[in-house]
Amino acid sequence: MNAIKDSVHDWITLSPVAADLLDTPAFQRLRHIKQLSTVRLVYPSASHTRFEHSLGVYHLASEALSHLRVDGERADHVRAAALLHDVGHGPYGHQTEEIIMRRAGRHHDEIGGVIEDTGIADTLRDHDLSPSRVAKLVRGEGELGQLVSGELDVDRMDYLVRDAHHTGVPYGSIDHGRLVRSLGYRDGELVLAAGNVRTAESLLLARGLMNGIVYRHHVSRIAGSMLERAAESLLDRENDVGIEQFARMADHDLLVALGEHVPDLGGRIERRDLYKRAVWAGLSDTPAHLLGLEHEDERAAERDIADRAGVDESEVIVDVPRRPSMKESNARVVVDGVVQRLEEASGLVGAIRAAQRDGWRLGVFAPESEREAVASAAVDVLGLPDRVRR
Amino acid sequence: MNAIKDSVHDWITLSPVAADLLDTPAFQRLRHIKQLSTVRLVYPSASHTRFEHSLGVYHLASEALSHLRVDGERADHVRAAALLHDVGHGPYGHQTEEIIMRRAGRHHDEIGGVIEDTGIADTLRDHDLSPSRVAKLVRGEGELGQLVSGELDVDRMDYLVRDAHHTGVPYGSIDHGRLVRSLGYRDGELVLAAGNVRTAESLLLARGLMNGIVYRHHVSRIAGSMLERAAESLLDRENDVGIEQFARMADHDLLVALGEHVPDLGGRIERRDLYKRAVWAGLSDTPAHLLGLEHEDERAAERDIADRAGVDESEVIVDVPRRPSMKESNARVVVDGVVQRLEEASGLVGAIRAAQRDGWRLGVFAPESEREAVASAAVDVLGLPDRVRR
Amino acid sequence: MNAIKDSVHDWITLSPVAADLLDTPAFQRLRHIKQLSTVRLVYPSASHTRFEHSLGVYHLASEALSHLRVDGERADHVRAAALLHDVGHGPYGHQTEEIIMRRAGRHHDEIGGVIEDTGIADTLRDHDLSPSRVAKLVRGEGELGQLVSGELDVDRMDYLVRDAHHTGVPYGSIDHGRLVRSLGYRDGELVLAAGNVRTAESLLLARGLMNGIVYRHHVSRIAGSMLERAAESLLDRENDVGIEQFARMADHDLLVALGEHVPDLGGRIERRDLYKRAVWAGLSDTPAHLLGLEHEDERAAERDIADRAGVDESEVIVDVPRRPSMKESNARVVVDGVVQRLEEASGLVGAIRAAQRDGWRLGVFAPESEREAVASAAVDVLGLPDRVRR
Amino acid sequence: MNAIKDSVHDWITLSPVAADLLDTPAFQRLRHIKQLSTVRLVYPSASHTRFEHSLGVYHLASEALSHLRVDGERADHVRAAALLHDVGHGPYGHQTEEIIMRRAGRHHDEIGGVIEDTGIADTLRDHDLSPSRVAKLVRGEGELGQLVSGELDVDRMDYLVRDAHHTGVPYGSIDHGRLVRSLGYRDGELVLAAGNVRTAESLLLARGLMNGIVYRHHVSRIAGSMLERAAESLLDRENDVGIEQFARMADHDLLVALGEHVPDLGGRIERRDLYKRAVWAGLSDTPAHLLGLEHEDERAAERDIADRAGVDESEVIVDVPRRPSMKESNARVVVDGVVQRLEEASGLVGAIRAAQRDGWRLGVFAPESEREAVASAAVDVLGLPDRVRR
Repeated sequence: MNAIKDSVHDWITLSPVAADLLDTPAFQRLRHIKQLSTVRLVYPSASHTRFEHSLGVYHLASEALSHLRVDGERADHVRAAALLHDVGHGPYGHQTEEIIMRRAGRHHDEIGGVIEDTGIADTLRDHDLSPSRVAKLVRGEGELGQLVSGELDVDRMDYLVRDAHHTGVPYGSIDHGRLVRSLGYRDGELVLAAGNVRTAESLLLARGLMNGIVYRHHVSRIAGSMLERAAESLLDRENDVGIEQFARMADHDLLVALGEHVPDLGGRIERRDLYKRAVWAGLSDTPAHLLGLEHEDERAAERDIADRAGVDESEVIVDVPRRPSMKESNARVVVDGVVQRLEEASGLVGAIRAAQRDGWRLGVFAPESEREAVASAAVDVLGLPDRVRR
Repeated sequence: MNAIKDSVHDWITLSPVAADLLDTPAFQRLRHIKQLSTVRLVYPSASHTRFEHSLGVYHLASEALSHLRVDGERADHVRAAALLHDVGHGPYGHQTEEIIMRRAGRHHDEIGGVIEDTGIADTLRDHDLSPSRVAKLVRGEGELGQLVSGELDVDRMDYLVRDAHHTGVPYGSIDHGRLVRSLGYRDGELVLAAGNVRTAESLLLARGLMNGIVYRHHVSRIAGSMLERAAESLLDRENDVGIEQFARMADHDLLVALGEHVPDLGGRIERRDLYKRAVWAGLSDTPAHLLGLEHEDERAAERDIADRAGVDESEVIVDVPRRPSMKESNARVVVDGVVQRLEEASGLVGAIRAAQRDGWRLGVFAPESEREAVASAAVDVLGLPDRVRR
Repeated sequence: MNAIKDSVHDWITLSPVAADLLDTPAFQRLRHIKQLSTVRLVYPSASHTRFEHSLGVYHLASEALSHLRVDGERADHVRAAALLHDVGHGPYGHQTEEIIMRRAGRHHDEIGGVIEDTGIADTLRDHDLSPSRVAKLVRGEGELGQLVSGELDVDRMDYLVRDAHHTGVPYGSIDHGRLVRSLGYRDGELVLAAGNVRTAESLLLARGLMNGIVYRHHVSRIAGSMLERAAESLLDRENDVGIEQFARMADHDLLVALGEHVPDLGGRIERRDLYKRAVWAGLSDTPAHLLGLEHEDERAAERDIADRAGVDESEVIVDVPRRPSMKESNARVVVDGVVQRLEEASGLVGAIRAAQRDGWRLGVFAPESEREAVASAAVDVLGLPDRVRR
Repeated sequence: MNAIKDSVHDWITLSPVAADLLDTPAFQRLRHIKQLSTVRLVYPSASHTRFEHSLGVYHLASEALSHLRVDGERADHVRAAALLHDVGHGPYGHQTEEIIMRRAGRHHDEIGGVIEDTGIADTLRDHDLSPSRVAKLVRGEGELGQLVSGELDVDRMDYLVRDAHHTGVPYGSIDHGRLVRSLGYRDGELVLAAGNVRTAESLLLARGLMNGIVYRHHVSRIAGSMLERAAESLLDRENDVGIEQFARMADHDLLVALGEHVPDLGGRIERRDLYKRAVWAGLSDTPAHLLGLEHEDERAAERDIADRAGVDESEVIVDVPRRPSMKESNARVVVDGVVQRLEEASGLVGAIRAAQRDGWRLGVFAPESEREAVASAAVDVLGLPDRVRR
């Protein structure tokens, strides 16, 4: 029985090519990359990995293709792309993606190189599949690519329900069965059939609530930004960890390397002995120029704050998230026979966007003992009002 | 072991007074009143009853009281009110409440008379509880009454998760564990502790989505309005069903009485051989005067339409729902130390309200064979644009 | 979208013939027959019906057929049989089947007459399906009939998980996904593939535990036997309820008829004001001749006991269940390439059978106030040892 | 709100001492030790850790204590023991416990030393709790110790349901709510109240099924024994990993150390490139002397087999599990007022024991390419019949 038991979708049947892809070291590596990186420091049950998530995305892609009556080699390519869509992730997933982007110039969606280097491409060719076509689908290109990466992709359907199952927070539990049954194409674009404005809204709402309650929980953000700083230190030091080696690490490799080479931050992350919020500022309290801050300027600001506060540079973290985006607002739904963007069809989109903006926070983090000094210095250096001190 | 197994909250421990109240015929009657009346014609698994819902509300009230550190006879009264809050319902619950209101002048929340007449009051007195105090709590009066009936009451926490469990539609799955842990009082008003704007919004969103997808599904509305008309016919005929007797019926009593005395509509409901939508009109297509229509005027309009369409009066149903209200928008949440109404604290409230308005529909229903004739007549009689015909 | 949301299997896709069968009055009637009759007096959430169970069996049959690679009209017949397998049930399902057997000579599996009389057969013929072939499949005849009724049938797979979901008792939660994937045929017999002895045992264990904890709970047995006596009274009285009319009743019809014509027992069932155990005797305490007692002898014994105890005949119920059988012990499993009956392959079967025998009880039930008198009389009349009195 | 969200028990409320214990590095380390070590190579969703399991055990202990009406400092000690019961585990939990036993002479239940060395003892003393009393409770000593470690302990209640939730295999889903409600003491022994023979059996059956389907799955056993051999190599080599350091490692530390120092086996485990079964022998095929084999003799047999097969010593693994034991068979249940051991009260115990014996297998594992040669050699060296070759 070539099937795998999954706690979310029950049994997942594997095609021969999927079974072979599963056995490649590059895919097995996903067993060692947690889906939600530092979120499990808040929701301890959330230790699930990108391995089972990838299986889930493969499963939902199979279901969607079957409802869309796509089969043959077109379906094989999509299923392979669904399975492989995360093999380009570095250790701790999204947490290290900007580091890899800055230093290797590569986004995790760019899996072309990875699948060639790791031999996955050979496995694909053995089954008469084209590696470059699979890579394009992972980038969301083409009609069928929208299923893998787009506003209505099966990736987000899986992660929302899976993260809900593992965190215990119910809000991600969308009706993926209805979603995959309602997909269709109009003029080459993936759309939801008539009668599904509410279904589309539910995707948006689920992500909106999960963002606030789970994905952007401040404790997870603190741990995540500590991990980023530690990883940069590791790469900056004179030791033999190059960016390509770094990008192929799994979570455990990075955790051990940090413990060895950046012991203070590494140990704190491992023991959950985290920095605290010195400053926590909403959008209206944040001067506009801070929003576009380059990475180097952010680092420079940290050094200024550390100087002024009389603490070590490593004891100040400035974390300025991007402005929130809601990709789902472009999802297309058929309303009265006409395709509309969700944003046009639903008054909720604007409100969710506003709520996401309301929830946006610039954070400055520091060890508990240095919190007050860092807060004062940060308010001065960043030009923030005094009320943002915690 | 005085505990009952519930599929939603697992084991529910009963206090001695709760155990005695359970044994009264008036409470046992709730076993025979389905929680979602005609919704199960759309979602067949939704056959749960007000009996287990009442147990669930009792359970959540116990949990909330324990977190609020309320005990002794104050807690006993609240728990009794939570358990009994639905004993005033007529057959098919909300579906007959307006009939009972019009003919007996009594809302289902007015349980004072019912509990005296049925002997429940004696059981309460046997345990040194005051029936009138329990009745007041059911009406939401007083500080603790807000727990039983109010913007943050445990009634809605239970029905949302229970309806989600039984319909299979996930959107009602709110985090009731967090809600009951976050309740508190400020100046005599029930509030959610700081950090819970998202939690409060989730209540609103859950109800918003469940309204659209479950509670106001058009098939359930059609069956519900057929049931209402049939019940009115039953009461209007010269037979011995008086309004007080009617109000004490259980679902099965009414279904059999309809089958006997109003066989056409009764049989159709039982066999799910339902009328269809002849007209389906949004708010912007509906002339303002129709919104405030009295019951008698609605009936007169039906007769006019039937006349004009040349069909029997019983073959036309005009269903004009009230404008949607979102009670949860008044829920109080502590934000930065200050109590705010959710409406002030969250930009979502306005959008949800708009979405509810968008989803509002006036319906005219008729047998499939008469649909076209009825649609034409309805458009004329009600002054609707032609595009609302189905 | 021709699909129905189910709280157990999520979305169930309907074929055109299934959709038409669903709309027949005889199938819609199953909405009004609870799956577990009186069990909900113990587990209040268990109000699910044979309607959704039938949909579930249809769904699992579809899955099994797809894994077995059976399609075309053979599959259509099996799916129709799966959907229709319960249309022959009387009101309250198994609770009235012996009454119908004794008076109409018909088992609920004999659906041939029912589907002709109710027009279901015409719907089948409209889709080029043979009613008699469907009826044979429901009786478990033929190779594919084993899927519908047999040791490894999809009927029991659905009811175990569904009853677990609705009662909240976890023990029925078998791995139906693995079961339907492991089915195969050997020499015309349905078997489980190699490696599935544990899987087969799990079916047996699930039913064993559910029997003890749910299906044969003494409170449900008491209510059930009260219902049987009341139904016999109804049929015995000089009123116009004939056995054929009785057999086509739904739960609510029977409950109302009992309330009208057998008000004492009917009212007690409705209000859950149940008889209690006067005698509760295990197998070793029960004289052998009682085990084969004919229905008439059982009634005669009740009259004797009532006489001796000086109570009304209707206040004594003697309930002698059949010896427990474990049909699953004949399930066939491939072990080391050879087909074995589960009984041969697993040492558990004997033990489960022994445990079922251990749990067997003869009961004599009476109103609380008459319990002692009835117990004494029953011990005398039935020749039981004194220790079986409660 | 001092509460943690758990995907199994929902919100878990922490007492002040529990909150402080959670913050100790020795407890945080449990975040990095998976509950089911190598099982996730078969059931990929099973990545949960001893951290959340420990929280779950703490939660169930609290519930049991509340039903038993034990409070004050006695309850505080039990709750602390429940929380800490796994801090003595080495990396990969049970998988390394025999290594640590052989080399450090310490069982994971012996937490006295660990809690002194790691500062946990100080935290306990800060809250006026006695570290030695906590350590005794973890060993199951005393009346209340049975709650933490015994036939009816809350440890097994949590792991069964948690492992079911995370693997997706339903059989561990016991009714822990009923179990904790049914506990009581008789003459200083923990017992289940009358009416719970089935409940006690369900514990046994759950573990029996989970053993066969999950815990002792052959793929997990192969990976586990590879891990053990690799860990022994690590400890045998001339590098600086001492047994005490080893015992304090977390999973990721060990995985990285193996990758560095025992790259072949380490890499195979990480990539799930596992040995296969060369020999798989049931009890009746296994000569008696093999059952009592000392560790050294097992290693010697491996060397003999390797010699004879002409392969490297590291390519042969002989895995002889202990005879299965079913601790639950000693669980005490009240039957007819008398305390009985489950074994006396239930005929199932013997059968489950027999089924466990039936499922017992001696395994010899080797790389796929060497499987045949190793099988021949193993049959010769171990004196096994030829039919045990795979």
